[in-house]
Amino acid sequence: MALIVQKYGGTSVADCKKIENVAERVITCKRQGNDVAVVLSAMSGETNRLIALAKEIQARPDPRELDVLMATGEQVTIALFAMAAKKRGFEAKSFLGFQVPIMTKPLFNKARIEEIPSANLQDALKAGVIPVVAGFQGVTKDEDITTLGRGGSDTTAVALAAALHADVCEIYTDVEGVYTTDPNICPSAKKIEKITYEEMMEMASLGAKVLEIRSVEMAMRYDIPIHVRSTFTNTPGTLVVKEDEKMEHILVSGVTYSRNEARITLSKVPDKPGIASSIFNPISSANIAIDMIIQNTRAGDLTDMTFTVSRDDHDQAMEIVKEAASKIGAEKVTGDTNIAKVSIVGVGMRNHAGVASQMFDILARHGINILMISTSEIKISCVIEEKYTELAVRALHEGFGLDKPSLQGK
Amino acid sequence: MALIVQKYGGTSVADCKKIENVAERVITCKRQGNDVAVVLSAMSGETNRLIALAKEIQARPDPRELDVLMATGEQVTIALFAMAAKKRGFEAKSFLGFQVPIMTKPLFNKARIEEIPSANLQDALKAGVIPVVAGFQGVTKDEDITTLGRGGSDTTAVALAAALHADVCEIYTDVEGVYTTDPNICPSAKKIEKITYEEMMEMASLGAKVLEIRSVEMAMRYDIPIHVRSTFTNTPGTLVVKEDEKMEHILVSGVTYSRNEARITLSKVPDKPGIASSIFNPISSANIAIDMIIQNTRAGDLTDMTFTVSRDDHDQAMEIVKEAASKIGAEKVTGDTNIAKVSIVGVGMRNHAGVASQMFDILARHGINILMISTSEIKISCVIEEKYTELAVRALHEGFGLDKPSLQGK
Repeated sequence: MALIVQKYGGTSVADCKKIENVAERVITCKRQGNDVAVVLSAMSGETNRLIALAKEIQARPDPRELDVLMATGEQVTIALFAMAAKKRGFEAKSFLGFQVPIMTKPLFNKARIEEIPSANLQDALKAGVIPVVAGFQGVTKDEDITTLGRGGSDTTAVALAAALHADVCEIYTDVEGVYTTDPNICPSAKKIEKITYEEMMEMASLGAKVLEIRSVEMAMRYDIPIHVRSTFTNTPGTLVVKEDEKMEHILVSGVTYSRNEARITLSKVPDKPGIASSIFNPISSANIAIDMIIQNTRAGDLTDMTFTVSRDDHDQAMEIVKEAASKIGAEKVTGDTNIAKVSIVGVGMRNHAGVASQMFDILARHGINILMISTSEIKISCVIEEKYTELAVRALHEGFGLDKPSLQGK
Repeated sequence: MALIVQKYGGTSVADCKKIENVAERVITCKRQGNDVAVVLSAMSGETNRLIALAKEIQARPDPRELDVLMATGEQVTIALFAMAAKKRGFEAKSFLGFQVPIMTKPLFNKARIEEIPSANLQDALKAGVIPVVAGFQGVTKDEDITTLGRGGSDTTAVALAAALHADVCEIYTDVEGVYTTDPNICPSAKKIEKITYEEMMEMASLGAKVLEIRSVEMAMRYDIPIHVRSTFTNTPGTLVVKEDEKMEHILVSGVTYSRNEARITLSKVPDKPGIASSIFNPISSANIAIDMIIQNTRAGDLTDMTFTVSRDDHDQAMEIVKEAASKIGAEKVTGDTNIAKVSIVGVGMRNHAGVASQMFDILARHGINILMISTSEIKISCVIEEKYTELAVRALHEGFGLDKPSLQGK
């Protein structure tokens, strides 16, 4: 008998009928002798609907109240799910963030889970009750409601799995697993059977929308295997696990891309110590994450500085940077939202030289100009003009042989 | 400077634009130097939408989970309202039931408020913050979410007014106040300027939908004046207050009716001690309220028993009564949902004889047959065939001179 945390995403609970299907799946798992705790997202579209309501009133909604508003989405699905389970003769009980409790830091819209005292859930499990937990939400020690940011329900699920010492955390979604790249762009994309936490983190942070990065980070920290799979089939999906020897033989596991990118350039910045921090401190104070940074030296103690932020943050970042620029005497600030980032990811890169040059070569052969580059141990990212996104993804997928049958998981 | 609790109903917060209008009203009141605490209902239609979702899954939704579901309605409006206030430069903070906390007994769907520790709200008020409290919902000591039943937001408002020792509880709705009868049925209906708690309770319980009865009961207990008025005009509405001498001169203050009535008859019940309790105990165990009861004696130790319940409870009550009937050997159980109740209400009745016979006379003159009668100190109710409802209301309204200019409040 295993203890399994199952998380179902928005498309899996999009309406009452789908919620009943999910209840059937959970019950099947329970009938097989397992203990199951369920984490649900809001119905797909609901969070966006609520945000739209907020924006009708405030262009930048008050963060605390936005969380109060958004938290209703999951509250609806967990209540309906508990009803669906009870209708089938199974005991189930919904748990809101404050009822678990899922304790977070007091940071609205982007809270981090600090602790999950599991006594309430353990009591439910011991009594044979299926705990149905609202994803995405938490509560501060002052009893304010917080949310964990986009994809936060994955984090809820993994954090619960860790708190409950679950055997596996199953993430149910509307795709069959993690693919070598986006099948919508590249029809030859293949499902990956097994992938390391590190690779998955790079894939997630680079725009593969299947799993939220913090959830993978947390799964790695607590060594919780994640099984990403489809709500609508019984096919096994993708296992996200610790690295083993076999996995090192794969040079490149996946190709990812992100269009949610924007580039901001400060021209002719006086090149003095402390300049970078006077630009980037106010940005990070506004909770805007900076991705790549490039600095070019010009003649005469001047420098150009270019960095990328997510496109959602572009306008706010521009405002902040313009203010900083006038303080430090930079000549000009320009923004560009017509860019994209393509990346290749693989733990095998660690032991193989030449992967980067192979990537640049493939892009060059397809006439794609590289605007910025960044690398880590297991990934290489290139910023390109947005219009080349699909071409770049397909070229890299084929160029690294990801369209061929693989030996993964064999 | 007064402390005012303002409650806005579903039609007053039906969309974002209306919520902004309500924010303007609250701010106007605050600018006049008052402290204001706000209680909001869900957007009109939202609670029904949520119940419909629940019923898609369970014909009789699980009570605990139904409350979790329904409580989201008010959560949405208080968050949006707080945003609207902040946008206008006023500090506001939403409070859910568990955050106030509004402590209730652990009875789902129909919980009663037990206690409202007011420290959190007092702190907000002291800091110049407008507390925006979710109506309709509470929390048990085990942290389960409860709801107070239909119209529960009125009760929330009055209970808060009592807990905060407010000067007045203003109930904002889509009508100008309490009328002598339903203006939709009787165009000559007049707004009542002042009415006693007792009268209002009778009016509320008999189907005048403006105020929930428990809220009036609570206002009476704590001597909180209620001011029922329109969100959409500045006209003073109806004051619900303690009785004063002038009010005794009004014989009949209002005519009310209710179509939410059903009649159940047990025929040929063996007339033995304990029979009534074996019928009514299981009904009250199911939390179904019984209104009128009539017992007729037949020949040969047999009796007929007739009682009324709300029409919503008819099917469930019939099931229960049929079971009880077979146990006690009653011959037949019949139900009738084609009935209505019309009533006249007035504190003046206490000191005047003959009001009842005047009522029966008016109905008889219009050819309306009376099926059941019940009376209290300040009201007389008659059950009639449903099809005569409008006719009866108009006849009584005119018959008791309620269409004439009154001296109320003068």
